[in-house]
Amino acid sequence: MCGLDEARERFTVNNAKVAILMGSDSDLDVMNEAAQVLKDFGVAYEVKVLSAHRSPEDVREFVKAAGPRGVQVFICGAGGAAHLAGAVAAQTTLPVIGVPINSSPLNGLDALLATVQMPSGTPVATVAVGKSGAKNAALLACQILALSDKALPEKLDRYKEKLAEGIRKKNREIEKQNQS
Amino acid sequence: MCGLDEARERFTVNNAKVAILMGSDSDLDVMNEAAQVLKDFGVAYEVKVLSAHRSPEDVREFVKAAGPRGVQVFICGAGGAAHLAGAVAAQTTLPVIGVPINSSPLNGLDALLATVQMPSGTPVATVAVGKSGAKNAALLACQILALSDKALPEKLDRYKEKLAEGIRKKNREIEKQNQS
Amino acid sequence: MCGLDEARERFTVNNAKVAILMGSDSDLDVMNEAAQVLKDFGVAYEVKVLSAHRSPEDVREFVKAAGPRGVQVFICGAGGAAHLAGAVAAQTTLPVIGVPINSSPLNGLDALLATVQMPSGTPVATVAVGKSGAKNAALLACQILALSDKALPEKLDRYKEKLAEGIRKKNREIEKQNQS
Amino acid sequence: MCGLDEARERFTVNNAKVAILMGSDSDLDVMNEAAQVLKDFGVAYEVKVLSAHRSPEDVREFVKAAGPRGVQVFICGAGGAAHLAGAVAAQTTLPVIGVPINSSPLNGLDALLATVQMPSGTPVATVAVGKSGAKNAALLACQILALSDKALPEKLDRYKEKLAEGIRKKNREIEKQNQS
Amino acid sequence: MCGLDEARERFTVNNAKVAILMGSDSDLDVMNEAAQVLKDFGVAYEVKVLSAHRSPEDVREFVKAAGPRGVQVFICGAGGAAHLAGAVAAQTTLPVIGVPINSSPLNGLDALLATVQMPSGTPVATVAVGKSGAKNAALLACQILALSDKALPEKLDRYKEKLAEGIRKKNREIEKQNQS
Amino acid sequence: MCGLDEARERFTVNNAKVAILMGSDSDLDVMNEAAQVLKDFGVAYEVKVLSAHRSPEDVREFVKAAGPRGVQVFICGAGGAAHLAGAVAAQTTLPVIGVPINSSPLNGLDALLATVQMPSGTPVATVAVGKSGAKNAALLACQILALSDKALPEKLDRYKEKLAEGIRKKNREIEKQNQS
Amino acid sequence: MCGLDEARERFTVNNAKVAILMGSDSDLDVMNEAAQVLKDFGVAYEVKVLSAHRSPEDVREFVKAAGPRGVQVFICGAGGAAHLAGAVAAQTTLPVIGVPINSSPLNGLDALLATVQMPSGTPVATVAVGKSGAKNAALLACQILALSDKALPEKLDRYKEKLAEGIRKKNREIEKQNQS
Amino acid sequence: MCGLDEARERFTVNNAKVAILMGSDSDLDVMNEAAQVLKDFGVAYEVKVLSAHRSPEDVREFVKAAGPRGVQVFICGAGGAAHLAGAVAAQTTLPVIGVPINSSPLNGLDALLATVQMPSGTPVATVAVGKSGAKNAALLACQILALSDKALPEKLDRYKEKLAEGIRKKNREIEKQNQS
Repeated sequence: MCGLDEARERFTVNNAKVAILMGSDSDLDVMNEAAQVLKDFGVAYEVKVLSAHRSPEDVREFVKAAGPRGVQVFICGAGGAAHLAGAVAAQTTLPVIGVPINSSPLNGLDALLATVQMPSGTPVATVAVGKSGAKNAALLACQILALSDKALPEKLDRYKEKLAEGIRKKNREIEKQNQS
Repeated sequence: MCGLDEARERFTVNNAKVAILMGSDSDLDVMNEAAQVLKDFGVAYEVKVLSAHRSPEDVREFVKAAGPRGVQVFICGAGGAAHLAGAVAAQTTLPVIGVPINSSPLNGLDALLATVQMPSGTPVATVAVGKSGAKNAALLACQILALSDKALPEKLDRYKEKLAEGIRKKNREIEKQNQS
Repeated sequence: MCGLDEARERFTVNNAKVAILMGSDSDLDVMNEAAQVLKDFGVAYEVKVLSAHRSPEDVREFVKAAGPRGVQVFICGAGGAAHLAGAVAAQTTLPVIGVPINSSPLNGLDALLATVQMPSGTPVATVAVGKSGAKNAALLACQILALSDKALPEKLDRYKEKLAEGIRKKNREIEKQNQS
Repeated sequence: MCGLDEARERFTVNNAKVAILMGSDSDLDVMNEAAQVLKDFGVAYEVKVLSAHRSPEDVREFVKAAGPRGVQVFICGAGGAAHLAGAVAAQTTLPVIGVPINSSPLNGLDALLATVQMPSGTPVATVAVGKSGAKNAALLACQILALSDKALPEKLDRYKEKLAEGIRKKNREIEKQNQS
Repeated sequence: MCGLDEARERFTVNNAKVAILMGSDSDLDVMNEAAQVLKDFGVAYEVKVLSAHRSPEDVREFVKAAGPRGVQVFICGAGGAAHLAGAVAAQTTLPVIGVPINSSPLNGLDALLATVQMPSGTPVATVAVGKSGAKNAALLACQILALSDKALPEKLDRYKEKLAEGIRKKNREIEKQNQS
Repeated sequence: MCGLDEARERFTVNNAKVAILMGSDSDLDVMNEAAQVLKDFGVAYEVKVLSAHRSPEDVREFVKAAGPRGVQVFICGAGGAAHLAGAVAAQTTLPVIGVPINSSPLNGLDALLATVQMPSGTPVATVAVGKSGAKNAALLACQILALSDKALPEKLDRYKEKLAEGIRKKNREIEKQNQS
Repeated sequence: MCGLDEARERFTVNNAKVAILMGSDSDLDVMNEAAQVLKDFGVAYEVKVLSAHRSPEDVREFVKAAGPRGVQVFICGAGGAAHLAGAVAAQTTLPVIGVPINSSPLNGLDALLATVQMPSGTPVATVAVGKSGAKNAALLACQILALSDKALPEKLDRYKEKLAEGIRKKNREIEKQNQS
Repeated sequence: MCGLDEARERFTVNNAKVAILMGSDSDLDVMNEAAQVLKDFGVAYEVKVLSAHRSPEDVREFVKAAGPRGVQVFICGAGGAAHLAGAVAAQTTLPVIGVPINSSPLNGLDALLATVQMPSGTPVATVAVGKSGAKNAALLACQILALSDKALPEKLDRYKEKLAEGIRKKNREIEKQNQS
């Protein structure tokens, strides 16, 4: 495979375990939700704008180089005819998570179907449309990494407990409001 | 670009002006509608199964080699998260026509949105879902080629006249049935 | 065909290769995206408001006269039950590109289906809903014209390179932000 | 308007008050439901295959000639990007009823939206998708004609009573089944 | 039928030929589009809020009384599970026009399907969702009334000409802008 | 209210607690699922074909009379622009359960939206499209009646246990198959 | 069942007959519509935030304890993949009402389908998407409770009369506006 | 947590790394596609019917016990208001893959939205509707396990090569057919 060394140089940033990719920099606002979760869990990640349609060679080179560099999970956000996750999944056997983004007039139904309806042989792990999906993509990446990273399972358990505790706290607030 | 010569050899079949590509050989039944129209119009074509997800390198190599070989228009049929047309369009500046195929439980709405909702910069000329679309894809290819091929405009005009005449003939048959 | 000479006079504006038509002047904001691309590529175009429903005779006369005047591609934008592209395609064998516009409460799904689901015999090359689609319609027109216009292929290649370069630049900006 | 006399000759069949038009002879099975209702109500009608896309001139000429001949209501059935009703409505100020036909893989949602979402200025009275719609189109035509045809109101009242009586009869049958 | 006389008294307002009904006074903004068109065409109309669900007896009584009072066409606007047009159609053999209103989170798709998908036997002439539909409902009413009202056909022809002329004027404006 | 006594006579069949209504006898196959569940739970019911559009007076009279006769819950199945449940709910303050039936080309999406999207003031308790929904409608009726019928809660508990036990039995069968 | 006593203590608030549950405190704005109706009808209720996904044990314990405490109906509001109503229905044979909330980019279609399409055996009484649905959920709860609560039927009748009277008042206002 | 030991006993079958769960035994035909892929990759798995609605306690107990027994990934198939994957995800921090099954009249759109649109905090890795999705769910599970299982990456690479080779073989067959 030619051009790989060059690709390695151009893209090697850090010891990222998770690569957060997006089809356009206008998706950054949504995909930062994923980055924040990974930061909270202490998982090294990198963020790239890479388009399946506008920079297909870069997608291919980045994905080919990412595995050897240590990337273990890809998170790909895109809107419209969202092909980025599928294009990445076509180039790797590492798990690929797709985040459909509601950036077209069709409210993200296009991005959802273009991401999830992959043909047999090339799965994309699809999450919800928009910010909730971006956040969950990062959590799913942590769950996947937790199978081989000793520190993560406990963090995930604590996170899950905090979710439940957060709800209980809300209920106490509602009860107080009702009593006052 | 490495591997191109090899690609040229592997794929060079004939003097095809139109390349009919499809994501799976199960799409052949639909895409043969396009082939038949091109045959009727005397336009040289070739038929290939090429998957954006299962054989992305072959897609890239085929598309890169096709232009220099004389291909002027691509027709790409695919179902589900139909990325083939977009993947081809990402690799060429030749016109790419997308045929959404209704091969998933969602009746082709997924293939339609995944084909047509392309981001700005990389158009795919999308036609109707299924066999009508495949036929029209070939006609559209002829219309495009007709801008530089002296023989085609007249053939297209005659085809259009035959469409209208076909309808008039149907009406005469209906009238006869009503009279008898 | 009567009325044609009159039509030629009324509409003959310039040496337009591409006619940008739209069903209502409220679509101008969207369709100007197409005009801008053609201007950037140096392709002569003309802009008309023509409605399949409110001025059907004008559509017919304009389309019939446009070919002899030198128009080679039609770009038609419309919303709702978007029939303009189909009405134009019914009158010509030149390539017709349809831009569905999201101007009704149904977010453009109506315009998309009314534009793309053409019956066999009369293709419309449909692009994405809204502004992305309008831009891509113009690019698709350039790709079609490039088959017979020597200057366009190189411009299209340069445009494609600029798309990829634009993405690389964004990544350098993101990296800088992360370092500072 | 040239060609009209010729059109009058070609199409003048009878003293039809209602013209049942359809985009393809494959729609005959559905549209015969409309014909049967008109026959039952004793309303003269004619049946034509006329395509907005394949025979647009014939549509125009037929519609222009139909009014002077005595046609008072148009019923237009079409599938996919169903433009026939809209194309007829563009040529007349007589009432036009549209029947969306489920002949594409998208189950008639395309035909429904392409028929009903007409822009302001050119209404199409749209009924349900498929055979129920075809039947109701004919009833609607009768309701419209009944405003000036003395015989029809009573027939419509009797038809309505028969609908209710039919249901009551069904209930008596169900009760008998339950008792035996 | 008891209660009818009372109904006649309560509702008899004027010599309305068209009754514009709506399910809620929040629909007034949309339905006023219909009223305005009827005013422009000089057709007497009345406006009522009547709900198929909240005041079913009033609907029934109003519809039963409306015919004898001279109402010839009903226009019914409603959102969500829009039953008003159907409930009116169940009570009369006069033509009923349904306007789906986009007042729920589902953007009017619910109102469209609930209005148009009527079972055979009880047609509702459905127009587009929202304000365009309301305007067209009134035009359709005028087209229906024109079959027996000598003054209306000419007004409808003039309206149609004005639509086309309006478009031609827009084109002259666009051309002027381009020249300056 | 006139006609009520007559209605009471015409419809009084038994001591039904639940009235199963449907818009057409072609819905019987689906709605029998509800009848079977009520029979299994020993809840008296009656079955009627009543159409909101074809026999609106009968609907009104039946509903008005049903309450005094002892009916406590209505189950209403209908397809297309499914208004039956809403029409019943407009006439009573007893709980009304709606079963959307997939009898039109649109697969029941129309019936679902026409049943569930009721305006505030007139609720319809909507269940799933088709046979699963019909069965659940009957179970929901039993759950509602169980609040005042001492025998039902235990039967519902046993039914729920049998559901779980049925699944456990399936697993034992699967395990046996795998071992053999 | 272990943990139940603890659950009883933690949640026992009052003599609520209706439990209003929601998947997130961001749903409070919508679900308060339900609370207001219950307050108006004098029906004791309690409000809880409980998530099928974030606090599944709390859901289970709350539901198991609620019945013995006197809760007779559950109202569950949730958005997206709205599982709360289904999760509650899985734990009880009391009636469960589901309110789909439009809090995702897909406008509540996701919440509607995830709430209403329950498998046979576990019904959820689904109402409209959003605030209208929340209000109707409370009315439906009152209708259910009215079967065993002597005070409620009359209140429901009066409410229904007020709905009709409200509409009549609106009509008087519209008439006054037209006269002045 | 009470009942866990009993659960461990009841369910402990083998050293399964992947648990394939489904909401009904009627889903077995679809989910066997997943089982076959895991068998081909030599990954130990177990198959269970477990319903989020009919056997919620069993779901909870199974999931709680599965992790300690060595299960590392869950694959959950369900149709309609498909809650199984979400219910499992609520009980574990292991990765959960959801397969929407098209077993309702709505063609699987309901199952897709009910599976993928999870709220932030509880991800479900969703794949395509139906058999393609089931197959891909198993491949995704292998990709996830491959991060810590040395044998799997090579198997996945070989599988990917075979996909591409399978397509090349198809092309050779097509070429032969064309030559003969």
